[in-house]
Amino acid sequence: MKIGYKIWLDNHGKAFGEGPYALLKRVLETSSLHRAARQMGMSYSKAWRLLHTVEKRLGVLLLERKIGGSSGGGSKLTVEARDLVIRYERFRRDAERSLEEIYQRHFGSTSGELWK
Amino acid sequence: MKIGYKIWLDNHGKAFGEGPYALLKRVLETSSLHRAARQMGMSYSKAWRLLHTVEKRLGVLLLERKIGGSSGGGSKLTVEARDLVIRYERFRRDAERSLEEIYQRHFGSTSGELWK
Repeated sequence: MKIGYKIWLDNHGKAFGEGPYALLKRVLETSSLHRAARQMGMSYSKAWRLLHTVEKRLGVLLLERKIGGSSGGGSKLTVEARDLVIRYERFRRDAERSLEEIYQRHFGSTSGELWK
Repeated sequence: MKIGYKIWLDNHGKAFGEGPYALLKRVLETSSLHRAARQMGMSYSKAWRLLHTVEKRLGVLLLERKIGGSSGGGSKLTVEARDLVIRYERFRRDAERSLEEIYQRHFGSTSGELWK
């Protein structure tokens, strides 16, 4: 047996969790929402709608769109989005460690023979 | 903004979480799966199937069925089920406190003005 969990940021409804995080992280790495969407097996329009929904729910802009230019455009995270990615990664890491520790405390091998 | 989360016990799939917990707790209080199901707005057969699924997934019996007798029968939790209810309540309480603290650490008012 093990612990199962999901965590997310809530702002009058689910606002930011694993899916948007994974997408933003890939935009950060590839500087392109097109490439980020493709890596996640998601259409560009679905990826765009997903981030637009998150922007509305959090009340911050996530993407700076660079239109055209010699490089053919691309997408860059705003300062707020980069801050969100970093905070979310630390938040998730601490939550994971803590929940595992709490699970072990109550259901781990020293807590009784029943719950393996 | 606030943290949102779900936690459960996983044993090759979701095995025990809020729904089964609430049902077991009511069986404990009412000594009757019929009354527990009614309190949750759930049919008796659905409640029975839910607990049967949990029994299979956890590999323990949860209910002792008392058939007939002057009181007309009823349902009682096994020792294992009572132990599970108590452990789960403590596990959930600790998880809630810890997740709230971790959320505040990374997104609380001292962490920046963006995330309110």
